Amino acid sequence: MDPLNPAAPPPAIPGSDLIHKGSTTPLGVGGCHLITLRQHSDHRGPLAVLGQGDAPLPFTPQRIFLVHHVTGPVRGEHAHRICHQLLLCTHGSVRIRIDDGRHHHTITLNQPHLALHIPPMVWAEQDQHSPDASLLVLASHLYDPADYLRSRDAWLAALGAD
Amino acid sequence: MDPLNPAAPPPAIPGSDLIHKGSTTPLGVGGCHLITLRQHSDHRGPLAVLGQGDAPLPFTPQRIFLVHHVTGPVRGEHAHRICHQLLLCTHGSVRIRIDDGRHHHTITLNQPHLALHIPPMVWAEQDQHSPDASLLVLASHLYDPADYLRSRDAWLAALGAD
Repeated sequence: MDPLNPAAPPPAIPGSDLIHKGSTTPLGVGGCHLITLRQHSDHRGPLAVLGQGDAPLPFTPQRIFLVHHVTGPVRGEHAHRICHQLLLCTHGSVRIRIDDGRHHHTITLNQPHLALHIPPMVWAEQDQHSPDASLLVLASHLYDPADYLRSRDAWLAALGAD
Repeated sequence: MDPLNPAAPPPAIPGSDLIHKGSTTPLGVGGCHLITLRQHSDHRGPLAVLGQGDAPLPFTPQRIFLVHHVTGPVRGEHAHRICHQLLLCTHGSVRIRIDDGRHHHTITLNQPHLALHIPPMVWAEQDQHSPDASLLVLASHLYDPADYLRSRDAWLAALGAD
């Protein structure tokens, strides 16, 4: 995005066709959004972009991690006090349950051009990983064990303290 | 990493075992490095981290993109004037050729805990994508068509102008 002209359309990628604009859809749970990445395609195949015009990154990542070859039934099962997370299932599929203490929602990430933005204080759990699932997580902060709320009781107590 | 004590070991992830420390290996081509992500594992499976202690992010990403379902023989085939890139093959495998005008090297990314840091002015090409390859690229800058050197002649001329 041109910072001097934020309404300008993002530049095209030379030699490729835009097949889908980016979009952001609120999910009604603690500020969570489903982000559809901007998608280009040409004879070499598709390319999905985040950080351009209609599909900006919701925060600047300071840390990334990858979850793969999942063997347990559930991962996640925590909330963060201040850290934002962005989840992309770059291959395969995974189901994610998000809960803000009043509303909850379950969503399946099964396309590499879908991303789920989870703000702080949202409890998240992942299950139903396909055997080939690779889940990429971008985080807004470096790792800090004190930022994790690992029990639902501690999370609910922290929510009540807001 | 604790910014007040950069020599401190990174904190452990509760309930998981460290199975491999992070490391960074220079490849002798234009400042390119192969980064091995820090890897943790527990009963739920492995988790690979970048942006923590012994495996820092080499730059702050401003943009990410994903290449998948590749149908052409070669992708990449350009250099950047100022943009750094970090490539991770989160599923499947891809071969990458890097060239700084004097030295070149070919490397296969075939594990999700491997990342290739490509600094500016390095010509890079990708080929031999496995059918299930998902290639994630983190970029240090927003998209700017003027940052791309898309022909080898233009790249060599720009190298000579340094």
